[in-house]
Amino acid sequence: ESGLASYYGYGRAGKGGELTCAHRTRPFGSVLKVSYSGRTIQCRVNDRGPFIRGRIVDLSVPAARALGMMSAGVVPVSVD
Amino acid sequence: ESGLASYYGYGRAGKGGELTCAHRTRPFGSVLKVSYSGRTIQCRVNDRGPFIRGRIVDLSVPAARALGMMSAGVVPVSVD
Repeated sequence: ESGLASYYGYGRAGKGGELTCAHRTRPFGSVLKVSYSGRTIQCRVNDRGPFIRGRIVDLSVPAARALGMMSAGVVPVSVD
Repeated sequence: ESGLASYYGYGRAGKGGELTCAHRTRPFGSVLKVSYSGRTIQCRVNDRGPFIRGRIVDLSVPAARALGMMSAGVVPVSVD
């Protein structure tokens, strides 16, 4: 399936540093392969979500970092 | 000044719903005007940071939302 991914900072950590994520329907404990911009990670489902239309997976911060999507939340600004 | 902005979920909330942010050098309590993509918000400095090269301001989540940069952290993925 294809769609949007977001990340969230409040998820439970995985055992032994395992990458974790939230999915609406996949079984708890199952492993997803998530690909973005040519990179693929595996993360274990340990939560439910996301509940926003068009989003298909919510990644923990370590998983988002491994997938290289953290910098996507950084935008150019000017400050006065 | 121009540079990159990020946001962080762990900042203290502003009094009375005021938007808040972190800056390395501006005085605590001062108000910054932050512009992104044609939108400008005002946020009050109540923290220090960001400490990553090229980033000039860290916004609280409400401030990032007001500035319209939250969706920048959402990326297209495929899940298998």
